[in-house]
Amino acid sequence: MQALSLVDSAFLWMETRNQPMHVAGLNIYSPPPNAGPHFIAKLLADWGQHLSARPPFNRRPVLRLGLWQWEEDKEFELDYHLRHLALPQPGRIRELLAIVSRLHGNLMDRNRPLWEAYVIEGLPGGRFATYIKIHHALVDGVSGARIMAQSLSRTAAESKPPLWAQRFSQYSGDAHASAPAGLIAQLAGAVRAGREILPGVGSGLLDMLRVGQGGKASALPFQAPATPFNVEISGSRRFAAQSYSLARFKRIGEAAGATVNDVTLAICAGALRKYLEVQKALPKKPLIAMVPVSLRGESDAGGNQVSLLLANLATNLRDPLKRLARIVQSTSEAKDRLGSMPRLQKLAHGITSIAPMGPAMLTGSARQHPTFNVIISNVPGPRETLFLNGARLDEVYPVSIPTQYLALNITISGYGDSLGFGYIACRRSVPALQRMLDYTDEAILELERALAIKPPARKRVAPRKAK
Amino acid sequence: MQALSLVDSAFLWMETRNQPMHVAGLNIYSPPPNAGPHFIAKLLADWGQHLSARPPFNRRPVLRLGLWQWEEDKEFELDYHLRHLALPQPGRIRELLAIVSRLHGNLMDRNRPLWEAYVIEGLPGGRFATYIKIHHALVDGVSGARIMAQSLSRTAAESKPPLWAQRFSQYSGDAHASAPAGLIAQLAGAVRAGREILPGVGSGLLDMLRVGQGGKASALPFQAPATPFNVEISGSRRFAAQSYSLARFKRIGEAAGATVNDVTLAICAGALRKYLEVQKALPKKPLIAMVPVSLRGESDAGGNQVSLLLANLATNLRDPLKRLARIVQSTSEAKDRLGSMPRLQKLAHGITSIAPMGPAMLTGSARQHPTFNVIISNVPGPRETLFLNGARLDEVYPVSIPTQYLALNITISGYGDSLGFGYIACRRSVPALQRMLDYTDEAILELERALAIKPPARKRVAPRKAK
Repeated sequence: MQALSLVDSAFLWMETRNQPMHVAGLNIYSPPPNAGPHFIAKLLADWGQHLSARPPFNRRPVLRLGLWQWEEDKEFELDYHLRHLALPQPGRIRELLAIVSRLHGNLMDRNRPLWEAYVIEGLPGGRFATYIKIHHALVDGVSGARIMAQSLSRTAAESKPPLWAQRFSQYSGDAHASAPAGLIAQLAGAVRAGREILPGVGSGLLDMLRVGQGGKASALPFQAPATPFNVEISGSRRFAAQSYSLARFKRIGEAAGATVNDVTLAICAGALRKYLEVQKALPKKPLIAMVPVSLRGESDAGGNQVSLLLANLATNLRDPLKRLARIVQSTSEAKDRLGSMPRLQKLAHGITSIAPMGPAMLTGSARQHPTFNVIISNVPGPRETLFLNGARLDEVYPVSIPTQYLALNITISGYGDSLGFGYIACRRSVPALQRMLDYTDEAILELERALAIKPPARKRVAPRKAK
Repeated sequence: MQALSLVDSAFLWMETRNQPMHVAGLNIYSPPPNAGPHFIAKLLADWGQHLSARPPFNRRPVLRLGLWQWEEDKEFELDYHLRHLALPQPGRIRELLAIVSRLHGNLMDRNRPLWEAYVIEGLPGGRFATYIKIHHALVDGVSGARIMAQSLSRTAAESKPPLWAQRFSQYSGDAHASAPAGLIAQLAGAVRAGREILPGVGSGLLDMLRVGQGGKASALPFQAPATPFNVEISGSRRFAAQSYSLARFKRIGEAAGATVNDVTLAICAGALRKYLEVQKALPKKPLIAMVPVSLRGESDAGGNQVSLLLANLATNLRDPLKRLARIVQSTSEAKDRLGSMPRLQKLAHGITSIAPMGPAMLTGSARQHPTFNVIISNVPGPRETLFLNGARLDEVYPVSIPTQYLALNITISGYGDSLGFGYIACRRSVPALQRMLDYTDEAILELERALAIKPPARKRVAPRKAK
């Protein structure tokens, strides 16, 4: 029995049917060259041997004396968590993303450990996917991506036990008892922040942030415009995903004097601008993105440890280079502030960690005056090629959380030489999400043209797109 | 805009993650002999033409002034409701039922019309299934089964529009305005009953039922024993299903002087007795089943209109013939009472309609003193063979609702010469549900042996069983 931190438990408290609080990873694999027709069956039979789960995959939440606690599930049933699916014909990425859209809209059963692992067969050429869904109370996006990568092998010859059967140092034993002092301090900060934020909530903390920003109000507006993304959401989801060559982003960054992160934000900004233009809903003021920043060191314990910065996406600017320059200015000022203000940083930790619960909690009147318009999260991923029982991992896509008044979330995961963009949205308030993939293409080409970079031949690195 | 009756809206109020309130039908089809490899694709393309839905499939619930109302979904999105799935290898009924178990545990999105239609390909020999899930607030099990049957064709040559695009007289226009006077009276009764039952609730209505039963307490005990089925439930489900020849049930009934309904109850009783024996949890007192009885006439409007009887399942008796005789006595007494007591009938209507919300509402202390132990529902089905765009309907299985303190529900649907048994249970509190299928087999054989009826050769009509 182990109490959840206030931040982690907030993900349970704030969860509703319209606002499930899980994150997921969609991985696409190529079978090994010598794989027979029973490769998936063998993989599942192999995984099926691991009938018990290690932390955190054996923990279910129980409410005791008004506090959420983790307890070990004594009736752990692997058959419930491990699920075999097949794509219907014609088995394109389109069918895969339709299934992921549905799976991501389903609430998990809180009577069991809060994760589900799907093996999805039926892509052309024997390719297959895994979609692994974990509650945000159990892991944040960064630790989720990290343990998923850790669970895979670095060579085709090696096989490891499945995710739930591996020992992850950050979750071994009683995470909180073994946590370093810094974490305890952070948790105390989160508790302090949580106390002030959770019930009722005004913009008190934001006022503190505002004070903290000094005289640079122009670069960091806390008053974001109203957009179609900042509305109440429904319980259904649409997921769209596509991979791009990291080299293209790097070339743009080198030519424009920007980091890959800034280029990524600029490309999202271009896509968002186009989407809103087509929807006839582009506001005159620039969109503001909330960009999570990990505070995690390699040796830290599990749980949620992130800070944030707010980036001006300059969607009001037509010129893609001016837009990128404005973003660079905005994020570098924000990073300066983060580095120089430990007190703010601690508070921001608490705010950010619960930010996926919606800016309404922070501002009280999100629709009229959203704090920010969209979350854009760049999750670090593995650089080297990874394998699952000999199958090569080809593509990695994060699937994050839309929330009340934040109907769209863009999360990007690096893997090897590519960046996997995952757009997840409320299916009702963000119509035609799949068009965002075309607009992302266009935003990259637009920057390349402006910088006189020759775009690659029409053959994209991974032109796998779908609604 | 149309207000829900109190009974229908109660299904929305009482729904939780652990207690979803939808019913479903699982149909299994054989493709026509001349079907090419694209039969399913053509079926889906055909259905995909019907982009708008008719009542009740275009209605979404909205809460106005504290009352649930139906309103037309102006942004109806067929692509959300119509879903294409495929069975993973080896594509047995086992894999089908594993998928249905999962789908049935998911809450629907209340921002949309409360139904989902799945076409599931990949059974051997080109067979396929449909699993159609509808919220109990939209239709009860009987009208659901009826409109599903109505939506199919009586000849292989005929094709009809899909379920959601057909006009059903019972839902045309404003159901309540066009309802006959009898329905208005029933609704008023339901409202009266609902007012007394819904908040707080004592056993007041049950006391009235007790008074109504006169001196025959021995045959209709309102105090059912504690069993493993009468516990709090989780949000995960297990579905098990199997079909039997109606002729076998008829032969048993003729030999023993019992109706098919009574034989069905006796077979369930035999299976339940064996299951509880193996679980070392067979109570000394007999289990009590709640058996819904439809009050619906052919011309009635939609909604929920059922009454109930409580049947003594005589699970304390080892002898299968004595058990059957006791069940016959119990149900005939209950029917006599139903027929002679119009006032009781009206109240029972209200009670029954919300009974799936759990006997705890009726008794207040269901765990110690359940009112009844299990719901066994025999849904009338079509006698003639039905077709879907030329594909023959082979098997029909209802999938009903486990609730708090009623962790197991058995619903049986007649179709042609067979009876489809659908066992649906909380996956956590009713372990090894699939064994119930073996015990059902044994219960039939036990009765046949006792009555010296020669059982059919080992080849069963539809020996499709799985967990």
